[in-house]
Amino acid sequence: MTDLDLSRFSINQMTVRQLSLPELTEACARLGVPGVGLWREPVREYGVEAAAKLVRDAGLAVTTLCRGGFFTTAGDLDDNRAAIDEAAALGTDTLVLVSGGLPPGGKDLAAARERIADAVAELAPHAAERGVRLAIEPLHPMYASDRCAISTLDQALAVAERFPASLVGVGVDTYHVWWDDRAPAAVARAGAQGRIHSFQLADWVTPLPEGVLNGRGQIGDGSIDMREWRTRLDAAGYRGPIEVELFNDALWARDGVEVLEETVRRYAEHTL
Amino acid sequence: MTDLDLSRFSINQMTVRQLSLPELTEACARLGVPGVGLWREPVREYGVEAAAKLVRDAGLAVTTLCRGGFFTTAGDLDDNRAAIDEAAALGTDTLVLVSGGLPPGGKDLAAARERIADAVAELAPHAAERGVRLAIEPLHPMYASDRCAISTLDQALAVAERFPASLVGVGVDTYHVWWDDRAPAAVARAGAQGRIHSFQLADWVTPLPEGVLNGRGQIGDGSIDMREWRTRLDAAGYRGPIEVELFNDALWARDGVEVLEETVRRYAEHTL
Repeated sequence: MTDLDLSRFSINQMTVRQLSLPELTEACARLGVPGVGLWREPVREYGVEAAAKLVRDAGLAVTTLCRGGFFTTAGDLDDNRAAIDEAAALGTDTLVLVSGGLPPGGKDLAAARERIADAVAELAPHAAERGVRLAIEPLHPMYASDRCAISTLDQALAVAERFPASLVGVGVDTYHVWWDDRAPAAVARAGAQGRIHSFQLADWVTPLPEGVLNGRGQIGDGSIDMREWRTRLDAAGYRGPIEVELFNDALWARDGVEVLEETVRRYAEHTL
Repeated sequence: MTDLDLSRFSINQMTVRQLSLPELTEACARLGVPGVGLWREPVREYGVEAAAKLVRDAGLAVTTLCRGGFFTTAGDLDDNRAAIDEAAALGTDTLVLVSGGLPPGGKDLAAARERIADAVAELAPHAAERGVRLAIEPLHPMYASDRCAISTLDQALAVAERFPASLVGVGVDTYHVWWDDRAPAAVARAGAQGRIHSFQLADWVTPLPEGVLNGRGQIGDGSIDMREWRTRLDAAGYRGPIEVELFNDALWARDGVEVLEETVRRYAEHTL
């Protein structure tokens, strides 16, 4: 796949979670994939320092660490400080935040968003100290109650804009924001502020599975115009990695290297 | 249940679809339920004129007919004209429109919304002739690709505002718009224009079922502050029926009259 321009491509570890970290880094090196997005759980299982050495030795950039957050429910700030430390140890400058939904029995999304902003304010000094940026990722409104009260880029920016852009920005994930007619203007605004701290791709396919977590479609299989989104981020001045992050039971059931190769091809076909 | 103020309550037929139309009208009359929202399929199965006579004889108001639309996919305008005729025959002034998603293979939501606006323009004269208002209902963004490209009240108003308010308005359904921080302002604007043509309640409960169609929660079971929404619509000047519309496999598996009684109690508890 050396004929493709993969300079901005990154594979999120969850896309091919059937691969061990050594299998993943070996496959990336062989295929010319320059970046990986990592997840805390498998990294800690492997050992943070060992994982850092593995990706460093393979010449891979760690584009993001997923994820901190869940401020309104189970997450606590100590655990989020640990996530910031892990990001720094892995050599990535970006921790993605999935902010959390309503507390048990809660019905007040605006209050949940304020609680999220308060938590980001408490975390920001530690992130600054470690040289890690926080990317507030809006999740699709179908997750508003149980995973993330921040449903739009405008809402994410409303929190991020309280902080320096070098410290707190937003994560743009096509799966979560593709439906939103206000997202293009928000992308432009975030870009002008230097606040786009991650860009992730997944396609929208239906029917959605029970629980709506593992239905993120392979690039090109769904309703999202990926080239339009890549062009939109380019126009907003974003020059960073483009990470493909799929949670998909059908992809997880297949050979991981085969899925990685397919994802590289789809990325090239639909965004380059 | 005669001690409750049910003057604005309406039960959507789908909430208790296990009841035949005669069973439904009999139970409504006995419980003091003054209104029903009807669906085209069961009404046509029973016979439109026979259904009209049945609800009239039971003293029930038909608050809405669901539904026309699907302009971008399977729906055609002749079928929508028939839906308008059926609404008029049933004595309701409101046909709810679920507008349709992307055409097969499509990726352009803005174009789909324009196609919807064009279809509404073609239908409007027939609706005016029959004295039926069209209520454009935004559906939750999780239905954007396959059921309704209109995902927010702002988008619905952007189409409705091209027409006289007496002819084309919006449908406000808590399940679809509860997450949207811009919905309160849109409700106020729609109300000021006299454009709120239906108001439906369902609660947001998780996990969502496969296909995300039949997970509309019983009032009070989920994350939506129903009293806040009722108050919001009141403040916007809306004085019409409040229709409870649930699609829920667990409710459908129970005795229909028992579900209707429960729904009346929940409505009273959470909105009055």
